[in-house]
Amino acid sequence: MDTRTRRREIDDVASELFHANGFAATSVRDIAKALDIQAASLYAHVASKDDVLWSIVDGAATDFEHAADRALGDAAEGDAVERLAALVEAHVEVVTADPERSSVFVTEWRHLSGSLRAAVESRRDAYEARFRGTIAEGVGTGAFRATDPAIAATFVLTALNGIATWYRPDGRLTPDRIADHYVDLALSAVAEDHG
Amino acid sequence: MDTRTRRREIDDVASELFHANGFAATSVRDIAKALDIQAASLYAHVASKDDVLWSIVDGAATDFEHAADRALGDAAEGDAVERLAALVEAHVEVVTADPERSSVFVTEWRHLSGSLRAAVESRRDAYEARFRGTIAEGVGTGAFRATDPAIAATFVLTALNGIATWYRPDGRLTPDRIADHYVDLALSAVAEDHG
Repeated sequence: MDTRTRRREIDDVASELFHANGFAATSVRDIAKALDIQAASLYAHVASKDDVLWSIVDGAATDFEHAADRALGDAAEGDAVERLAALVEAHVEVVTADPERSSVFVTEWRHLSGSLRAAVESRRDAYEARFRGTIAEGVGTGAFRATDPAIAATFVLTALNGIATWYRPDGRLTPDRIADHYVDLALSAVAEDHG
Repeated sequence: MDTRTRRREIDDVASELFHANGFAATSVRDIAKALDIQAASLYAHVASKDDVLWSIVDGAATDFEHAADRALGDAAEGDAVERLAALVEAHVEVVTADPERSSVFVTEWRHLSGSLRAAVESRRDAYEARFRGTIAEGVGTGAFRATDPAIAATFVLTALNGIATWYRPDGRLTPDRIADHYVDLALSAVAEDHG
């Protein structure tokens, strides 16, 4: 197994443990045991438990960022409605592709210390700004009603992140159906009332 | 200080610690230290750390249930739109009155074991059913569009629970303003499209 594959495997196993028991309650020994290797062997790949958390959070953040950039790129010719739909769809795709990792990203990132935590905080804010900016744009053009773009973006994003807490690959809804529903609910939440 | 007041103080201090560091990373000794008492004195009031978690989760669940019952009672003469608005407003009120405890209720309840965890799971489901049922009722009368009541209820409730993760008493928005925005966003999310 090459280093890259092994590193990804460590992140996957650690994501499951952090998701199930929390970062604080999981030891490097637990991660090694779940990988069926000695803790000493694990230290050949990772410097510390914080290092594993950083790798998971950084990987998840990068996937969310790339997916959002692709979504905004694909919808570049469209209006704010299409762009918000594309952002929501992309987010659902990343969450459902790896719910454990997404859940760790959403709930355990605050256990990162100092500059790493600050770096994630600013990346989260920049990510949220894509939603905020798209909603503000739609409010400006009249596609969306005069809502507060910051609070509307938070409302939509917290609902989206919640998927990581309840999604089951063997559940009633496929990722595509969840995306359809969430696009529908998110767009309606900010839509101009034509009543 | 009477037993009841002391018990509430323990829950408050433990909520802050569980919220900041997670249940697993917090010891009975940490809770005692934050209360400026000996661990042995703390054991005069609580049987275990799990007992403290149960008290917090049970207290929060009870507050959410009572608030929802009051909301549905007050809006008994109204339609599904008024009832969903009342449920959302009540939920925002409980979350913002004690965001640490709400956050522990939402994220740490899964550390409860066995029958206590099952009891909370079924109370959470019964609580969500109030939202689901109200949305289904509105879909039935045509007040809401033909959305999936279960997924719409989950969408709204996860957004509502997210408030515990970002709300700050000294922040830009008062609880009342947050409630106004969230009622507006939640009702729009499920509203009939008159376009």
